[in-house]
Amino acid sequence: MEEKEISQAVIGRLPRYFRYLGELKDEGVERISSQDLSELMKVTASQIRQDFNNFGGFGQQGYGYNVEYLYNEIGKILGLDQQHNFIIVGAGNLGRALGNYMNFERRGFIFKGMFDRNPELVGKEVRGLKVMPMEQLKKFVTENDIDIAVLTIPKTSAVGVAEHLVQYGIKAIWNFAHVDLNVPDGIQVENVHLSDSLMKLSYNINRYMKEQK
Amino acid sequence: MEEKEISQAVIGRLPRYFRYLGELKDEGVERISSQDLSELMKVTASQIRQDFNNFGGFGQQGYGYNVEYLYNEIGKILGLDQQHNFIIVGAGNLGRALGNYMNFERRGFIFKGMFDRNPELVGKEVRGLKVMPMEQLKKFVTENDIDIAVLTIPKTSAVGVAEHLVQYGIKAIWNFAHVDLNVPDGIQVENVHLSDSLMKLSYNINRYMKEQK
Repeated sequence: MEEKEISQAVIGRLPRYFRYLGELKDEGVERISSQDLSELMKVTASQIRQDFNNFGGFGQQGYGYNVEYLYNEIGKILGLDQQHNFIIVGAGNLGRALGNYMNFERRGFIFKGMFDRNPELVGKEVRGLKVMPMEQLKKFVTENDIDIAVLTIPKTSAVGVAEHLVQYGIKAIWNFAHVDLNVPDGIQVENVHLSDSLMKLSYNINRYMKEQK
Repeated sequence: MEEKEISQAVIGRLPRYFRYLGELKDEGVERISSQDLSELMKVTASQIRQDFNNFGGFGQQGYGYNVEYLYNEIGKILGLDQQHNFIIVGAGNLGRALGNYMNFERRGFIFKGMFDRNPELVGKEVRGLKVMPMEQLKKFVTENDIDIAVLTIPKTSAVGVAEHLVQYGIKAIWNFAHVDLNVPDGIQVENVHLSDSLMKLSYNINRYMKEQK
């Protein structure tokens, strides 16, 4: 597989294919044509074929795709057959919401620990795990094979904490802090900037209202 | 302004410009060249100029952009000079996290109410507002000028709740449920599929590790 050439735009669409195929599988559907998948997902059939061709095509046209095979293959490409341990830094509402989200575990993401610098939150339990103080971060990350750190802390502390996490050997950061992180090459970062998403919604509301006038 | 031709890709980048310009403004920076903005934001200067040209350009090249003017103009384009009332449906951890996030208010998004079908959550307070039962949703939305509904409920109920919200006159849905919604044209939807984001991170971790071998 020529994975090196695959654009982040294609990668960004894989989870959605995976989600739809998982639902088809759960409904007992065994085969689906690119045309039917296209109608279901509201993307063109040619887009689907182009995306899949990045990974060798996954099956015969005309005959349709084998749903379970395709689901498993996309899961493997996404690395969901691997286990990744993660910690959450920031035990506020958002951090606790993510810690309690059981579905991540089904995908191979194992919640291992939670940290906060607020002494009032330290010791509280999130899904059976006690919130630890920041002083224990280094020891915990290095001793527990932690790949991913989820950052749900204010932007003022996120940049510094991210630097430390990289030093401790973390491989990836799922960043909810409202700031872009500066990390070395090889450290993967995925940003979820919630305010950005809300502003995009705001733009589209206003534009639509102007068009109606 | 020829807003009709502006792609969602450009719109998707505006909030990030807005964020950086807000920080520059807070630091007292009055002018910035596209070159300096480019280095700060790690996008090409030509990308910045192309993006801004969609809105008339915002200022002279060479002389640089007036930071406060640019910040305010992008804010207006994003509709942040308008007030939008929103409700949250789903009073779990994620819903409460979003209800408690004060920054939305600074951007003109006013948190007006929260709903849940779980009787144990009804009556609890989130930022001074009592969680209401779903039976009050229709009356509340129609009587309180609510534009935006935030959905933080399981995917099994999200599709049905979204249909009702549209009937009640909602203009936009900020969807955190792990499902794509089917809404009529003119209803704006912005999806935040957290699992999709985590899977993209997973892909990038695994690909990097393969390349290192």
